[in-house]
Amino acid sequence: MGNLGPNFTDPSSPHAGEFQPLDHEEFRRQAHRVVDYIADYYKSIEEYSVLSQVKPGYLLASLPKTAPSEGQRFDEILGDVRRYIMPGLTHWVSPNFFGFFPATVSSAAFMGEMLCTAFNCVGFNWLASPAATELEMVVMDWLASMLKLPPSFMFSGMASVPLFSFSFLWTGGGVLQGTTSEAIICTLVAARDRAIEEIGPPDYHDYTSKLVVYGSDQTHSTFKKACQLVGIRPSNIRLIPTTAKSNFALSPLDLQKAIKADVAAGLVPLYLCATMGTTSTTAIDPLEQLVHVVTEYNIWVHVDAAYAGSACICPEFRHCLAGVERVDSLSLAPHKWLLSYLDCCCLWVKRPSLLVKSLSTNPEYLKNKLSESNSVVDYKDWQIGTGRRFRSLRLWLVLRSYGLENLQAHIRSDIGLARIFEDLVRSDSQFEIVAPANFGLVCFRLKGSESKRTEALNKELLEQVNSTGRAYITHTIAGGVYMLRFAVGSTLTKEHHVVAAWKVIKERAEIVLTTEDRNQIVNL
Amino acid sequence: MGNLGPNFTDPSSPHAGEFQPLDHEEFRRQAHRVVDYIADYYKSIEEYSVLSQVKPGYLLASLPKTAPSEGQRFDEILGDVRRYIMPGLTHWVSPNFFGFFPATVSSAAFMGEMLCTAFNCVGFNWLASPAATELEMVVMDWLASMLKLPPSFMFSGMASVPLFSFSFLWTGGGVLQGTTSEAIICTLVAARDRAIEEIGPPDYHDYTSKLVVYGSDQTHSTFKKACQLVGIRPSNIRLIPTTAKSNFALSPLDLQKAIKADVAAGLVPLYLCATMGTTSTTAIDPLEQLVHVVTEYNIWVHVDAAYAGSACICPEFRHCLAGVERVDSLSLAPHKWLLSYLDCCCLWVKRPSLLVKSLSTNPEYLKNKLSESNSVVDYKDWQIGTGRRFRSLRLWLVLRSYGLENLQAHIRSDIGLARIFEDLVRSDSQFEIVAPANFGLVCFRLKGSESKRTEALNKELLEQVNSTGRAYITHTIAGGVYMLRFAVGSTLTKEHHVVAAWKVIKERAEIVLTTEDRNQIVNL
Repeated sequence: MGNLGPNFTDPSSPHAGEFQPLDHEEFRRQAHRVVDYIADYYKSIEEYSVLSQVKPGYLLASLPKTAPSEGQRFDEILGDVRRYIMPGLTHWVSPNFFGFFPATVSSAAFMGEMLCTAFNCVGFNWLASPAATELEMVVMDWLASMLKLPPSFMFSGMASVPLFSFSFLWTGGGVLQGTTSEAIICTLVAARDRAIEEIGPPDYHDYTSKLVVYGSDQTHSTFKKACQLVGIRPSNIRLIPTTAKSNFALSPLDLQKAIKADVAAGLVPLYLCATMGTTSTTAIDPLEQLVHVVTEYNIWVHVDAAYAGSACICPEFRHCLAGVERVDSLSLAPHKWLLSYLDCCCLWVKRPSLLVKSLSTNPEYLKNKLSESNSVVDYKDWQIGTGRRFRSLRLWLVLRSYGLENLQAHIRSDIGLARIFEDLVRSDSQFEIVAPANFGLVCFRLKGSESKRTEALNKELLEQVNSTGRAYITHTIAGGVYMLRFAVGSTLTKEHHVVAAWKVIKERAEIVLTTEDRNQIVNL
Repeated sequence: MGNLGPNFTDPSSPHAGEFQPLDHEEFRRQAHRVVDYIADYYKSIEEYSVLSQVKPGYLLASLPKTAPSEGQRFDEILGDVRRYIMPGLTHWVSPNFFGFFPATVSSAAFMGEMLCTAFNCVGFNWLASPAATELEMVVMDWLASMLKLPPSFMFSGMASVPLFSFSFLWTGGGVLQGTTSEAIICTLVAARDRAIEEIGPPDYHDYTSKLVVYGSDQTHSTFKKACQLVGIRPSNIRLIPTTAKSNFALSPLDLQKAIKADVAAGLVPLYLCATMGTTSTTAIDPLEQLVHVVTEYNIWVHVDAAYAGSACICPEFRHCLAGVERVDSLSLAPHKWLLSYLDCCCLWVKRPSLLVKSLSTNPEYLKNKLSESNSVVDYKDWQIGTGRRFRSLRLWLVLRSYGLENLQAHIRSDIGLARIFEDLVRSDSQFEIVAPANFGLVCFRLKGSESKRTEALNKELLEQVNSTGRAYITHTIAGGVYMLRFAVGSTLTKEHHVVAAWKVIKERAEIVLTTEDRNQIVNL
């Protein structure tokens, strides 16, 4: 094999020259080096431009066209990470990252992720790794309890029934998905198949074409994609318009009108995706009123609380989920605000049996006595794929390492920093706040007299700010208004970062406004 | 916040008492400890029972019902991993793991995964982290080239066209998915939507109900699930029976008959999932003949080469993919045989534009000039979800650290070990081989005079072997025959492990046969 190096056994050993891709001492050496590399990265993270400033093709042009024939030394590869990868990173962990929603991290979650990777359990069913399944059940109940979800969403919800005298399919429960998209697809398919079963096979597809789903124009774009994916007719996807007047929340009255019209037209209302904390502006759909509206129809109600749901571990925000006891499912992504790295999305359902009915597979090679007796949870039947990682370790480490009180403090601190930014914006007459800052996001813009010009000004400001590399913010359009989004919550962000970012924004605004004035004079 | 500890700032610092979930020095300390924990685990892995021997509920009964209020010390948590998690693990990394297919690992992939986690880039589009997108393009081309896939599956396939003077949508290319299930769903939806577009909107759903998909009874169970998920009528899913006579491969003649019958019945053939290396027995569907059969129909041909595809980096196995230049897409999971940990599934498609057409979303908050100019790849439009991890780092580290030659040696070594096991079985008149051992899997069983009894004997043998904790094997049924599966290829497995596992099997077979003889005497 020629290229003998650290990945090969000692020449004096009986296995001399054998390829050893998991020699534990070489693993140890390399991993300690990578740990230091990462810790140093986190230490010096503010030295990097937050938004990568490379041009398209920078890496394609730099790397060889084919993989090497012989193995290369670890030093060389780590050197290339520094040389080629780092400049092309947009630094999501940076305290100066205020784009999209933060993707939060923590030491505890990193340790959990290392263990998850190391064990490499493929937990498709209970037997394939009992700890992976049971820890997931435990942490899903823990988090449900922190959010004060009703017992109907928890494995331990039926507290009066002795453990294992009943099937887990008949309690509620939670499962970890990779993304909100998967959570929506799984529940949508369960709802679809329940509806189809009710009508029976002869009219099967005819009926599918009648199914209608509801959300608002602020519902995450993945909702529409998920609906199309599972075969909902595109013309049956109702994304009800919202307005600035109602703070971009879905209007129960508008929903009711839409449903009534559809029923009158012979269509069948199937699924409502309500959002707690929309992606554009963190709008809060009024859940309690919405479930009231749909109560007479057999509609599956899902709550997408991907980002803002985490705030409900604080009692003062829990009212945003009022009415949740009457919904069918809820998803929340701890990789957004609960310090847990990508990818981790919690899905709780009241009737897992409906998920299992739509998603179960039963190939011979996975059969075993326990699964057949229904006395264990086989999570492969709660998700799209078959294989799955031991993701719950990450959440378990986060919840234990920090505890409820610190996690509450972390949420409150982020919201407090957003208030500071909001106040800075409000105190400046050149700027305005354009949507309620419910959580850690502040939507704002440079004021302008005329809408087209204001949009151009703010677009220019966005580019200017991001090109400095000192802060990264993003934009959106809601209710026809172009606005800038300042999302506070990156794990490392402190008050001084928020203040410094505001300084950058102010500084660049001056340039943008001055240039604009000059251009206007020239144009006169 | 009370519980001051390592996650809090130094009392003497200006941020005294602040919650610090990512203090870089605390991160460093904890991560070094976890590295040692994992290296020690790998070192002592043979001391663990391969199959976990716990009972259902073992962990649910041991852990508290709610998360702690205050944070807990890292020592305590790591102690609980040892105490509660380890006994509930089925040790997939163990050299004595011969179940399912191996889920292979390596130092290089672990390092790549640590970096991926640390950067925590959410690479939905190019701009969100250019390095994440471009490195994925590079490694997908590298691996395509190692597999000698035709240039039509590669970004660099159109070598004569200068880089960036054309849109990447018009070349072929590859993308990393989590699992084969996702790869199948994405391509199936692309095929479905292409077919629907051809007929046009008025007949939309009527047409969907006519679409027919094909596979064999050996196709992975996720295929049927994926079809149902995207709305293929269950009665339109053809899983054509295979037989032991044709080595459980899909018969081109049977496929042709099925297609002709469907066309005659007014149905529309949509999609064929051919498998290279089926899950039960590693059967190889005859791709070249299959594509010849479907050539006159507008059928999307996908090749699921999840496990065995990796063998095609060795020239002597490449013939298994003969005909691949005429298929539409191919998936292969390096987490099975290319040392890369979960979850990592490569999908190559000839016409990414079809994927993008079905899977793209374009919310305002993700819009940017580069995406709109189509000059970059936005991988969110090649997959189900929006968010995505920097998975390519893992593959890049594997391909560079080991190089093509070592990876070929690794594949050949596993197959060589399987040959050793096969010879051991063949040399024993009490056993028989029941399916061709094409790669690293050997399907065998204890011989028996009568089919029911033979099945019972082998079931008993399976349980006995696995209860020792010294080896883990699984089973399947193909062509009505119950058989044991011995899958060689766990990263740490050496010849002596294979020989020792055979000894355990022999030893337990003696017990099973003796007990059976005794019972028969009693029954006389």
